Amino acid sequence: MSTRIVVIGADAAGMSAASQVLRRAGRDAVEVVAFERGPHVSYSACGIPYWVAGDVDDDGALIARSAAEHRAHGIDLRTRTEVTGVDLDARTVHATDLDGGGSYQMGFDELVLATGAAPVRPDLPGVGAPGVHSVHTLDDGAAVLTELARGPRRAVVVGGGYIGIEMAEALIRRELAVTLVDQAPEPMTTLDPDMGALVRDAMEGMGIAVRTGTRVTGFDTGPDGRVAGVVTDGGTLPADLVVLGIGVRPATELARKAGLPLGGYGGLLTDRRMRVPGHDGVWAGGDCVEVLHRVSQRRVHVALGTHANKHGLVIGTNLGGGYASFPGVVGTAVSKVCDLEVGRTGLGEAEAWAAGFEPVSVTVRSTTRAGYFPGSSPITVKMVAERGTGRLLGTQLVGREGSSKRIDVCAVALWNEMTVDELINLDLGYAPPFSPVWDPVLIAARKFAAL
Amino acid sequence: MSTRIVVIGADAAGMSAASQVLRRAGRDAVEVVAFERGPHVSYSACGIPYWVAGDVDDDGALIARSAAEHRAHGIDLRTRTEVTGVDLDARTVHATDLDGGGSYQMGFDELVLATGAAPVRPDLPGVGAPGVHSVHTLDDGAAVLTELARGPRRAVVVGGGYIGIEMAEALIRRELAVTLVDQAPEPMTTLDPDMGALVRDAMEGMGIAVRTGTRVTGFDTGPDGRVAGVVTDGGTLPADLVVLGIGVRPATELARKAGLPLGGYGGLLTDRRMRVPGHDGVWAGGDCVEVLHRVSQRRVHVALGTHANKHGLVIGTNLGGGYASFPGVVGTAVSKVCDLEVGRTGLGEAEAWAAGFEPVSVTVRSTTRAGYFPGSSPITVKMVAERGTGRLLGTQLVGREGSSKRIDVCAVALWNEMTVDELINLDLGYAPPFSPVWDPVLIAARKFAAL
Repeated sequence: MSTRIVVIGADAAGMSAASQVLRRAGRDAVEVVAFERGPHVSYSACGIPYWVAGDVDDDGALIARSAAEHRAHGIDLRTRTEVTGVDLDARTVHATDLDGGGSYQMGFDELVLATGAAPVRPDLPGVGAPGVHSVHTLDDGAAVLTELARGPRRAVVVGGGYIGIEMAEALIRRELAVTLVDQAPEPMTTLDPDMGALVRDAMEGMGIAVRTGTRVTGFDTGPDGRVAGVVTDGGTLPADLVVLGIGVRPATELARKAGLPLGGYGGLLTDRRMRVPGHDGVWAGGDCVEVLHRVSQRRVHVALGTHANKHGLVIGTNLGGGYASFPGVVGTAVSKVCDLEVGRTGLGEAEAWAAGFEPVSVTVRSTTRAGYFPGSSPITVKMVAERGTGRLLGTQLVGREGSSKRIDVCAVALWNEMTVDELINLDLGYAPPFSPVWDPVLIAARKFAAL
Repeated sequence: MSTRIVVIGADAAGMSAASQVLRRAGRDAVEVVAFERGPHVSYSACGIPYWVAGDVDDDGALIARSAAEHRAHGIDLRTRTEVTGVDLDARTVHATDLDGGGSYQMGFDELVLATGAAPVRPDLPGVGAPGVHSVHTLDDGAAVLTELARGPRRAVVVGGGYIGIEMAEALIRRELAVTLVDQAPEPMTTLDPDMGALVRDAMEGMGIAVRTGTRVTGFDTGPDGRVAGVVTDGGTLPADLVVLGIGVRPATELARKAGLPLGGYGGLLTDRRMRVPGHDGVWAGGDCVEVLHRVSQRRVHVALGTHANKHGLVIGTNLGGGYASFPGVVGTAVSKVCDLEVGRTGLGEAEAWAAGFEPVSVTVRSTTRAGYFPGSSPITVKMVAERGTGRLLGTQLVGREGSSKRIDVCAVALWNEMTVDELINLDLGYAPPFSPVWDPVLIAARKFAAL
C-alpha cells in the first residue's frame, strides 16, 4: 500500500518536496496530494518587481513549473483549494474547493506544511482603498500592472526593504514620480544605517524621493474612493498608486490552530531534517518556518525562495528514504535598485550586539575591477568581526555592477567560522577585468590588522 | 643603528614588503634599499593585454605606485640597477648601474628576494627575429604597440594559456587575423580538456583560428629579416606578428648561484612566513617562489600579482616586528577572452589523480541570472570531488558575463575543506538579477547526490 503525503501550499518548498519524494520513491510507493489556495504554483515571487518594471514580459516567465507539468509528474495537485483545518489526531485535513466544488476530508500518512508567508498590511485607515497594493502573488503583480495602465503619475512605496526598493525602481522606470517612505532613519534596515545611507544617496540620485524617519498613519481617498494620498506624521504625500513593502509574516494560522509549535516570529519550528518536533510525520519548510541563524545561533524568519527550495529538497529526500538536513542560514541577501547593487550576510553591528557579541567594524572603499580597467566602479565594504577572536560576524556591501555577488565569499567564510585574519590570504580570482589585485573583501579584512 | 633591508626586484612582492616594513617599523629603525633591473616598478603585468587591446590608454595607468612615490615614502629605490651577485656569508650584494654608473657592493642585514619570473622563450630557429614578442614587461607591451602601428595583418599567438588567450582577444580587437597555436588538445590547459573545448568553441566563434595539437618548430623570416611565419608540425602559419605566451619560469638564477634552495619548478623555497629555510635573514616572495597548494599538498609555481602582493605583506609585516604567514594557495584563476569568462580553482581531474586522489566529477549547465531575467546567459560548471569522502577538490567554470567570480565560492569552500554535500546548503546571495534560485555552483554540488 502506498504512503499518502499531503502537501499544503504548492510553491517552492511544497512542490520541491513533492517532486523530490516522487523522484526518489516512485509513484507506486507514494501518493502525493498537494493543495494550493491560489490559482498559481511554483512561481518566482522575487521576480514580480521585474515583471512590473517591464524586464519580464509576462507572468508565465515567472512560473518555474506549471500545474499541468506537476500533474504530468504524478502529483495530485489541487489548485484553488483551501485547507481550512488539520486534525493531527485523526491525521486528516479538511479542504474546500474555492470554485464551489464543496468541502471534503482527506487522510494523510505524512503532512508537509508549506503555507508560505503573507505580506504585512497595517491596520490603518484607508488601507483597503483601491490603489493600495501589496506585491506578493502573481495576482498582486497583475493588479499593479492594471493600475499602471490607468496612467498614474505619483506613486508612494511604503517600506524601504528589498521589495520596497525593487518596486521603487520598477515604478521610476515606468516614469512615475516615486516617493519611498520608511520609519527607520535610513532605507534597507537589513544594512547598518551608515551603509543604508549610501543606498538613500543613490536612490535620490536616481530621482526617487526618500522620506525616512516618517511614520505612515493612514491613507487618504479621493471622491472616487480610490487612494489619493499617504498620510504621515510629516504631512500627506499625494499618491495615485501605493505599494506596501513592509515585510511578510509566516502564514501559520492553520498550523497554530492545529496545535503545532511556533517560534517568536510566528514561524513553525522544525528540527534539522525539517520535521516538526513532537509530531511524527509532520514536516514544514519554506517561508512559514523559522530557521537557525548560524552566527547568532538564534531562530530567525527569512522568506527567500532559495531557502524554500532547499527545505523542499531536504523534506523530499527524507520522505523518500534518504537523509538530508538543513543546517541553517547566515543571513545572505542581495538586491539592486537600478544600477546600485546591495549585498549583506551575517550580522550587522546592532545585530551582533543583540546576539551577545562585542563587535568591531571597518569600512573600506575600493573598486569592482582594477582601477584602470574600463567599467571599474566604486564599492563600499563594511565588515564586522568579534573583538578579541577576530571571528567574522558579517559583511555588507554597496556598489555598482559586479558588487553584490561578492558577498558570497563572506557567506562561505561565515559558514566556516573564519577569522578576518584568515580571510586576508584567501585565494580569490584575480584578473584586471574582475577585481583589483587585492579583492575589496580582502582589503576590508586587512583593515582589522591596523585597528 | 638601523637595520638595512635590501630588496631585489621592485614589483608587487618587493615593494609591498618594502612599504609594509617602513609603515610598521618607521624610517628610523629600518633603511630599505630596493634594486630594480628595469626602468619600471610596481606595475600590473596582468594589465598589459588590456593596454594592447586599447582598454587602457597608456602604461601609466598600469603603474600602481611610481618610483618617485616610493622614494617619497622613504625607500632608497635604485632602478636600472642589476644585482649580479649575492654573498650570503659576507651579507653583501653586488650591484651594477646599467646606465654606466659602475658597480658596487652593498651590505644587508635582511635580504628580500623578489626577482619575479621570466617568460619562457623556446630555443627554436628564428625565435630572435624582429616581430616575435613576449608579453611580460611594460617595455614588451610598448614593443607590441609599436608593431601594431606598422599595420600588421596576421598575428599568431603561441600558447593558449591566460596570456595567450588575452593577447588573442587584444589582437582580434585590433582587427588582425589571429591564429592561436598550442600543442595540447585544447586551449587553457589549466582547465580539463572538456572545459577547454568550450573555450575553443567560443574563440572560434569570435573569429580566432585555434590550432591545437600543433607543435611549433621554428619561425620563418622574410627578406627584411622580420618574422614572416610560424613553422609547425602541421605546416607554416603566415605571420606579421608573433606573440609568445607559453608560460613563465621563476627568475632564480641569482638565488641558485648564491646557493639558496630551489624546488622542482625552479622557484625559491620558503616557510610559511616567507623565510628561506636555513638562511637567517633571507626572505623571498612573488613570482620567484614556489608555494604550497592546499589541496594537492604539493609545492607549485603560480605567477600571479595577487599572491605576490600577499607575500610582500607577509614579509613586510614579519620584518617590521609583526607576525604574518602565507598559508598557501588553492589554485584560483580567472580570465576572459572577449565576452567569455573562465574561472578555475583547486584540482582538475588529471591533477586530482596526480595528487593521489580518486576523483569523481559532474558537469552542469545553468544560467548566470534567473532564466527569465534579461541578460541571463549560460554557464557551465564542472566540479571535482574525492570519491568516498565527497571532499571538494576543484571547480572549473566557463560562461558569459557574471560567471568568473563565482569561482570564489569554491575557492573559499576548498580553503575550508568542505564536502560537496555541505556545499548544497550554502547561503549564497539570491535575487533574479544575480542568480537562479539554485546558484549554478550549488546545482553542481547537488548533482553528486544523484551519482
